[in-house]
Amino acid sequence: MVRSLRLALSQCNFVVGDLEGNVKKIVESIKIAENRGADIVVFPELAVTGYPPEDLLLKPQFIEENIEALNSIVPEVKDIIAVVGFVGVDEDIHNSAAIIHNGKLIDVYHKIFLPTYSVFDEDRYFKRGGRITIYEIRDCKVGVNICEDIWYPDGPHHFQALAGAELIINISASPYYAGKRAYREKMIAVRAMDNIAVVAYMNLVGGQDELVFDGGSFIVNPLGEIFARAKIFEEDMLFADVDIESVLRIRLHDPRMRKESDVAKEKVERIFVAPPAKRKQERIEPYKEEDLPLEEEVLRALIVGTRDYVRKNGFEKVLIGLSGGIDSSIVAAIATEALGPDNVIGVLMPSQYTSRESIEDAETLAKNLGIKTYVVPITEIFETYKKVLRENVWGDMPEDVTEENIQARIRGNILMALSNKFGWLVLTTGNKSEMSCGYATLYGDMAGGFAVIKDVMKTFVYRLGRYYNKRKGREIIPERVFVKPPSAELKPNQTDQDTLPPYEILDPILKAYVEEDRSYKEIVAMGFPPDIVKKVLRMVDINEYKRRQAPPGIKITPRAFGKDRRLPITNKFKPFD
Amino acid sequence: MVRSLRLALSQCNFVVGDLEGNVKKIVESIKIAENRGADIVVFPELAVTGYPPEDLLLKPQFIEENIEALNSIVPEVKDIIAVVGFVGVDEDIHNSAAIIHNGKLIDVYHKIFLPTYSVFDEDRYFKRGGRITIYEIRDCKVGVNICEDIWYPDGPHHFQALAGAELIINISASPYYAGKRAYREKMIAVRAMDNIAVVAYMNLVGGQDELVFDGGSFIVNPLGEIFARAKIFEEDMLFADVDIESVLRIRLHDPRMRKESDVAKEKVERIFVAPPAKRKQERIEPYKEEDLPLEEEVLRALIVGTRDYVRKNGFEKVLIGLSGGIDSSIVAAIATEALGPDNVIGVLMPSQYTSRESIEDAETLAKNLGIKTYVVPITEIFETYKKVLRENVWGDMPEDVTEENIQARIRGNILMALSNKFGWLVLTTGNKSEMSCGYATLYGDMAGGFAVIKDVMKTFVYRLGRYYNKRKGREIIPERVFVKPPSAELKPNQTDQDTLPPYEILDPILKAYVEEDRSYKEIVAMGFPPDIVKKVLRMVDINEYKRRQAPPGIKITPRAFGKDRRLPITNKFKPFD
Repeated sequence: MVRSLRLALSQCNFVVGDLEGNVKKIVESIKIAENRGADIVVFPELAVTGYPPEDLLLKPQFIEENIEALNSIVPEVKDIIAVVGFVGVDEDIHNSAAIIHNGKLIDVYHKIFLPTYSVFDEDRYFKRGGRITIYEIRDCKVGVNICEDIWYPDGPHHFQALAGAELIINISASPYYAGKRAYREKMIAVRAMDNIAVVAYMNLVGGQDELVFDGGSFIVNPLGEIFARAKIFEEDMLFADVDIESVLRIRLHDPRMRKESDVAKEKVERIFVAPPAKRKQERIEPYKEEDLPLEEEVLRALIVGTRDYVRKNGFEKVLIGLSGGIDSSIVAAIATEALGPDNVIGVLMPSQYTSRESIEDAETLAKNLGIKTYVVPITEIFETYKKVLRENVWGDMPEDVTEENIQARIRGNILMALSNKFGWLVLTTGNKSEMSCGYATLYGDMAGGFAVIKDVMKTFVYRLGRYYNKRKGREIIPERVFVKPPSAELKPNQTDQDTLPPYEILDPILKAYVEEDRSYKEIVAMGFPPDIVKKVLRMVDINEYKRRQAPPGIKITPRAFGKDRRLPITNKFKPFD
Repeated sequence: MVRSLRLALSQCNFVVGDLEGNVKKIVESIKIAENRGADIVVFPELAVTGYPPEDLLLKPQFIEENIEALNSIVPEVKDIIAVVGFVGVDEDIHNSAAIIHNGKLIDVYHKIFLPTYSVFDEDRYFKRGGRITIYEIRDCKVGVNICEDIWYPDGPHHFQALAGAELIINISASPYYAGKRAYREKMIAVRAMDNIAVVAYMNLVGGQDELVFDGGSFIVNPLGEIFARAKIFEEDMLFADVDIESVLRIRLHDPRMRKESDVAKEKVERIFVAPPAKRKQERIEPYKEEDLPLEEEVLRALIVGTRDYVRKNGFEKVLIGLSGGIDSSIVAAIATEALGPDNVIGVLMPSQYTSRESIEDAETLAKNLGIKTYVVPITEIFETYKKVLRENVWGDMPEDVTEENIQARIRGNILMALSNKFGWLVLTTGNKSEMSCGYATLYGDMAGGFAVIKDVMKTFVYRLGRYYNKRKGREIIPERVFVKPPSAELKPNQTDQDTLPPYEILDPILKAYVEEDRSYKEIVAMGFPPDIVKKVLRMVDINEYKRRQAPPGIKITPRAFGKDRRLPITNKFKPFD
């Protein structure tokens, strides 16, 4: 038989801080992998603690218990090699991978490249590693490194390959955004090609606050072909027999790994790992998940992100204010997919400005989804506020945006009252276009625990809605929701476009400014009217204070609000004169 | 005349992003310093952009305009040397200091040690520098470095001193917390002693979102004596004639700077700066501000932080819900000190649970402060909510915390309505003890733009109140406010201690857990009852979601909430079994 290694990539959905639960999951996976004759079972980055643990890493107790957790895994590893992410301690703390075999901790690798950009703060916590190793397992050479390490062409994988590593295992916790899957697979494929090695890319899966990890772990051969891919947005265990012999076969014909190998050898420490006993088992045909269309990918990200936020925080049911508009409709649909119809409650809160169509559309949607609804009219409460404020403060001053916000905040209060009374989590329904422009009422429609579509632009919300109906094979979201002009219905005959430019113009301007940091001049040069661009940029800038108090939501773009975009509130920088 | 340099430390209050305004301030200061015959005028870290610019640093337009801003300063520097903090560009961006003289940019120093901990994220933005320089000015040698650089004993100042620098100028933006001033002055004094040099420590002053910079720039001689100190929490320009000759005099007797100087010389680049023309002027007797008692220091931090947040964000007036309790009383007092009584509006919002004493105390306070008040009773609105919710949702279910929160959210809605109608900023009144335990209503008493005492524990709020009355020489805050049991008055006969342990026990537990990351066991070992410690730690952990939606407030402790403490919301780590 030619040289080969049986790999098991254990794509788990861990919970941050749940050391006990995570260890249990790891140990169970090790047993399964061992039973199926895997040589190596691999877990994602910081598997023991969950990712990202953030400032839990500043608690000595947390670090210690993480070490104890790892130590409890070690004796469970018998006739298999396990690669487990944890917080290593060595002078300082590191983002580390434990190499465990036969009840012994064989080695610990420390991550060398620490991401400190976008949502990542790893330089805040970890000391970077400096030691590069390869593991000789049976007659195969294996390099292990961690996430960001492989994003640099001259990262540790390169020295590992130069020193002879034929299989590179990268353990990651790489958060999703639309388009990242293709970028990441292309990049890793080229690493395999450049280094004439097999690369096993192990990714985390599941939601954690603002982040959702898409899984889709995969293995790519030295020709850059992905021959095994785990499920996307689901827990999975990917088994594959990796043909190590083929690496040598290509290297004999290709001088690239030969060139600098003398230099590399000095840098890289070799560690012999007593191999697992050979097993006679049939060759495994690796599973290869198909990639997903964009709308399906985003929809699943939102479903998983919502489900995990709700469940991992101990909630059973969620509560959504249904306005009959597209935003609350898609949020209700996502929640229903995530939690089941019995766990979603819709609340209609009509006022004198609510159209009959809106009520009908909300009711039809709820019926189609099979979710329970309450109707709580706000008119009487609204009139009482107006009376009390007139009598005690502003007499006969004319109505303005104040009265609009009062209505939104009454609705916020009602939703929170139901939340308090019944222990349900409120999902907010604001989209990224609104969040960007501040077209939302703080403590009103922004009130809630989790903002499902906070990172989804309005035009894409419509696209998702259409896709959702198509996917379900029927008109769950009523057609009228797509065609009527969007409105907050906070005063007579109001539409969003009284205040905002049409979404087809607004959204690309926002993308350019918020996600790509383009300047006013560049955006105008893209062909948008200067006065509209000015208005939009000004709205984005002056509403930072609202976003600072917004609930977390799921990142699905390269640049979300929240940890991903950290602008000062007090800020007099003007992007135009 | 012995060798000396006249220094001017220009302790400005800059505005983040206000390149034009900051440049104007810098140029004006340069003229003043030049007129008073200073050889060197020094500005704080990132003077041109304000500190911290956060993700503005990811906008190419911002970086470019910062360079243009610096370039506009250069020709204004005539017969003086100016040291100006800005964002340097050199392959990547740096946190830099420009050395300018006689209309020319002589050199740019790049900060070497980049803080990435606590509230700092500098590795997110900047590339670290690697080049160390000294400037030969007349017959004196001067080293310049930036903030964090000098916090390491082997930082660039050490090599500068070994290479002969007699004066070390450190430009900083060092945010305040109680106790930091003494720590910082002690540390810098020892740097001067260790390196047998004069150290001029230039600090920023003013508020920026969660941070307040305390100024108090100072100059310390090689004996560790601070002989000049600028005003604390105020803009100031500190002039001093620095006796450079004395440095050599000590060094001739002390071998420490001799030892490694050959090694150091190779590391350090020497740059000759054509000196300013000599002026005949009388020696300046340097100003030395007295240090402040702790309560005064904290009070000023809160006043300056509040004033700058309000003013820099373009507001004139603020609005505070007055409950008659100590928290809203001290916040109203601070706001009045910060903005003047005409710019502070108190709103009393009594319910059926509000005691007559509370109303009297709030009215007395307002009268003593000279601020205007409104009274907006909430009972009628509250009854309408209860009726509507009973009729449409929960029938005759018993009252619980839901009804308490409804009241708090009605008050939030009323304050925000006044804010919307009149353009006033709402200040919230929650203290750190409450924020820690989640003893506050999200969108209720937590609703507002700025949380003045968010980082002040309840026991210290009382202390500040006592101090404030003493400082004013009369009972501004009525005595009864200090002695009555604290209560949210959301149901009959309620007191805080129905829910929380006494503040004298609660606050030290919170300090140990929140500020010092001590473990459950350590806190119990401090002598607190295990069941109380458990209860408190659980409250802190489960209320992270509330804090995430809280308005920013002023950091006055080593560990504030906000950017300073970044814990996941989804987090199953249990500090005890």
